[in-house]
Amino acid sequence: MNIAVVGLGLIGGSLCKTIKRHTDHACFGIDTNMDTITSALEMGAIDSMIPNEKLAQMDLSIIALHPRQTIDFILKNASLFKKGSVVIDTCGIKGEIVKTVTPVLEAQGVCFLGCHPMAGREFSGFDYSLDTLFDNASFIITPADSTPFGVIDRIKKFALSLGFGKAVVATPEEHDQVIAFTSQLAHVVSNAYIKSPTLQKQCGFSAGSFLDLTRVAKLNEDMWSALFMMNREPLLFEIDTIMQKLEEYRQALLREDEAGLRELLKEGRILKEESLKTTSDQR
Amino acid sequence: MNIAVVGLGLIGGSLCKTIKRHTDHACFGIDTNMDTITSALEMGAIDSMIPNEKLAQMDLSIIALHPRQTIDFILKNASLFKKGSVVIDTCGIKGEIVKTVTPVLEAQGVCFLGCHPMAGREFSGFDYSLDTLFDNASFIITPADSTPFGVIDRIKKFALSLGFGKAVVATPEEHDQVIAFTSQLAHVVSNAYIKSPTLQKQCGFSAGSFLDLTRVAKLNEDMWSALFMMNREPLLFEIDTIMQKLEEYRQALLREDEAGLRELLKEGRILKEESLKTTSDQR
Repeated sequence: MNIAVVGLGLIGGSLCKTIKRHTDHACFGIDTNMDTITSALEMGAIDSMIPNEKLAQMDLSIIALHPRQTIDFILKNASLFKKGSVVIDTCGIKGEIVKTVTPVLEAQGVCFLGCHPMAGREFSGFDYSLDTLFDNASFIITPADSTPFGVIDRIKKFALSLGFGKAVVATPEEHDQVIAFTSQLAHVVSNAYIKSPTLQKQCGFSAGSFLDLTRVAKLNEDMWSALFMMNREPLLFEIDTIMQKLEEYRQALLREDEAGLRELLKEGRILKEESLKTTSDQR
Repeated sequence: MNIAVVGLGLIGGSLCKTIKRHTDHACFGIDTNMDTITSALEMGAIDSMIPNEKLAQMDLSIIALHPRQTIDFILKNASLFKKGSVVIDTCGIKGEIVKTVTPVLEAQGVCFLGCHPMAGREFSGFDYSLDTLFDNASFIITPADSTPFGVIDRIKKFALSLGFGKAVVATPEEHDQVIAFTSQLAHVVSNAYIKSPTLQKQCGFSAGSFLDLTRVAKLNEDMWSALFMMNREPLLFEIDTIMQKLEEYRQALLREDEAGLRELLKEGRILKEESLKTTSDQR
């Protein structure tokens, strides 16, 4: 089929390279940066660049832009997509996107399906894109109530054909709630962790746990502040929750209550052990 | 020289194996568990087991027990150590241990030096010990005011001879302050993170950042609650600090202040980037 990828950044560029590596589909690129287009052509990541008008010939259009630009691009170009074709996105937030663009595209006879390929790097841009970025990663599909089963099934098989480890279907709301906990909260906590004044006193040693806890503090603040604002309530719930939990350890320390502290740590240890069991069952 | 290792758990066992792998020192084991002694003998991790009384023939005694047991063992057996010999420990907390045991051993003509080999695994006990656990790890030495330079220098060279990547000297107070931030806070935050009710709703997908943030939630609650209680003030400072920082992101979200949120994330991103530069400079 004819596939357009709009936005050849880390995710879009990696999708192009992955499509060319794993499939025989024709892959067309749209990007505002001509240097990026030139690189993508030279590397064979795309078969050619196209103007927006050529979206009318695409069977699948993948919008791989940041959240707000994804919505803007789809709303602005809604009438250009081929009737009966499928449009998917790649954003880390699904509720607002699915809700906003689905009816607009439906009115044009085009099916929108919210998707979230769960992979990333601590760098952005086409130069860092990889044809292996999605190997064994999870591909999340978040249909609207009106999405036909056939579309979900086709996109699921498409994701697996690219080397994704699994394709998981969830509602946009379930996705956003889980992602607030497993990804967004991690970025907030990591970014807050690094801000202790003790950072300046490390004296030449630190623990491995410090590197784990602060790895994702290095983030793209433009993208993440937009993602957070679009998922305010679930994220606020998670921040409130971890702050309440931290307060419990704090109180036990203040009270010099070692037995209480031990109990709090034991609860967390058991939850982590159970979570490790569940994870390996699922893989 | 003759070295005794008291407590053949993950750290003590790994030290024995590392000593036998890298050096020609004689290595003697003390442990209350006879199965552990048998395993250690069979694997050649120790040359023989010894009763406490034989500490009188050791040039170096390494106490590799949990914090409270370390203090108890040294106080109870202070008169047994060889005059002029050196006793070191391996605990993750230094102030209270150095302060408590240094004068008692000094009165016996024995020099105590607080040490912290910075390595670990998510498992404990001799069965998990490795002769590679300390490869390239940091070995922290925390002398008291009275510690002779020659002792510091000898233990530093001993650590490097075992394959540690570097030996760093810091005061016990500096050590405890840094460790509250880079290790203890990481364990508290990780253990609190896993407690969100959203953990039960993961629907078959989670982000890599979730695994980073919760890796050390699986901890030994007996050891860590003791370590935390012995380092209450620095740890309380770090918990207070991260809670204040989290509150700033929370307020920006509540106010729907995307520019403010972006600024908070940018501050953290820059600190992390600077910290990565410093770390690679030091290595």
